[in-house]
Amino acid sequence: MSSVCLSMEGGAAATTPAALPYYVAFSQLLGLTLVAMTGAWLGLYRGGIAWESDLQFNAHPLCMVIGLIFLQGNALLVYRVFRNEAKRTTKVLHGLLHIFALVIALVGLVAVFDYHRKKGYADLYSLHSWCGILVFVLYFVQWLVGFSFFLFPGASFSLRSRYRPQHIFFGATIFLLSVGTALLGLKEALLFNLGGKYSAFEPEGVLANVLGLLLVCFGGAVLYILTRADWKRPSQAEEQALSMDFKTLTEGDSPGSQ
Amino acid sequence: MSSVCLSMEGGAAATTPAALPYYVAFSQLLGLTLVAMTGAWLGLYRGGIAWESDLQFNAHPLCMVIGLIFLQGNALLVYRVFRNEAKRTTKVLHGLLHIFALVIALVGLVAVFDYHRKKGYADLYSLHSWCGILVFVLYFVQWLVGFSFFLFPGASFSLRSRYRPQHIFFGATIFLLSVGTALLGLKEALLFNLGGKYSAFEPEGVLANVLGLLLVCFGGAVLYILTRADWKRPSQAEEQALSMDFKTLTEGDSPGSQ
Repeated sequence: MSSVCLSMEGGAAATTPAALPYYVAFSQLLGLTLVAMTGAWLGLYRGGIAWESDLQFNAHPLCMVIGLIFLQGNALLVYRVFRNEAKRTTKVLHGLLHIFALVIALVGLVAVFDYHRKKGYADLYSLHSWCGILVFVLYFVQWLVGFSFFLFPGASFSLRSRYRPQHIFFGATIFLLSVGTALLGLKEALLFNLGGKYSAFEPEGVLANVLGLLLVCFGGAVLYILTRADWKRPSQAEEQALSMDFKTLTEGDSPGSQ
Repeated sequence: MSSVCLSMEGGAAATTPAALPYYVAFSQLLGLTLVAMTGAWLGLYRGGIAWESDLQFNAHPLCMVIGLIFLQGNALLVYRVFRNEAKRTTKVLHGLLHIFALVIALVGLVAVFDYHRKKGYADLYSLHSWCGILVFVLYFVQWLVGFSFFLFPGASFSLRSRYRPQHIFFGATIFLLSVGTALLGLKEALLFNLGGKYSAFEPEGVLANVLGLLLVCFGGAVLYILTRADWKRPSQAEEQALSMDFKTLTEGDSPGSQ
């Protein structure tokens, strides 16, 4: 269902760039390996996952990697992958993926707070937890503001155009901060669990280091696909028509001025 | 010394955008506070810095924060700050700042390897060290490739135009990875030094957490200034004239085609 139309830069047709699918496939391979390896680490070295026991903690890293890394990253890629679908459909998918990510992250958050409470451990003392709370609050606020501007029908075309670059910047930044927070959490788990054995190149330490590098690579791959200028979704006539409303018309914005 | 000329997008004069100086000033305030607070942390809680003693380790975090965070970040901002100076001068400043950063980072690297050797500690087992080596190698390669393409007079205008987006992407990515690696190192130092006391909200732990948040904020501020589309350095006629050489002319590239 690929519709061909001219982009505003003039000339480029709205078909998929030749290299894009390979980069997307590679990012998915990285992302799925990341989720699988997180599961393998927790299963092989941390005793697996269960809600009603000491293993409740292990739900935390798995939920965070699935929600705030894999799903959040993919939500950012939606506009590149479905570049020829209707803008409205793509927007809804983008919002839905972010909701799934948020709910899964919330389960991960409950897991660690509940585990701390049962064990009598202190909460929110570490840099990982400070960054984590920052990520979660920013993510939630970004979702609400994004919804109000882009899915709720009130905002004018000019308001959306002015907010869009901010939304993209903060979206990418929150994603990168999520990757950084996951690295801090992984490091914390390694130092708590392995202690001095970490420096003896224990298999768990090496596996977790590879997991850390995979996190970095997935973050880098998503960022590359997202920021490459010639892979941006082309402006479509339909999109501008959908974004317009009476407010725009009365404000006298030209739909072609963005 | 601000020269006024039309940008290629048409219309915008090559003067400084009104808000840019405030954002740059804010980023410098963050960066300097970061360096000062790293010094304060090492001085107040880690015994200060000396090369010929156990305090040699402390040279590592300070050198890395000055070189790979503060100077690297500022090297990226050179094209935004000196937007109306000659392109050649700005390029040389960009390259020089990166060399300073690289040399200071090398001192920081020697400090930690030398300290490990004297103490008989294992090298390169942790995720922090793996990320650190990755950053250092990428940074060195990026500098060499950047020098060959942009300062060495051999590369054609079209080759430079094609490499420029890759250089910018990898530059920003290496900077962000440096910030992430610094966070991992800070976390490692905290867990090694404070152990169980970290969870009791020891002053050193809180100070180091604030230091971590400052790292994140400085990274975010640099990224914001760097990526804001209307703050990009405008294309100048002079720049294209400087970039052209015989190779370009024989290849038949039009200087205005980028």
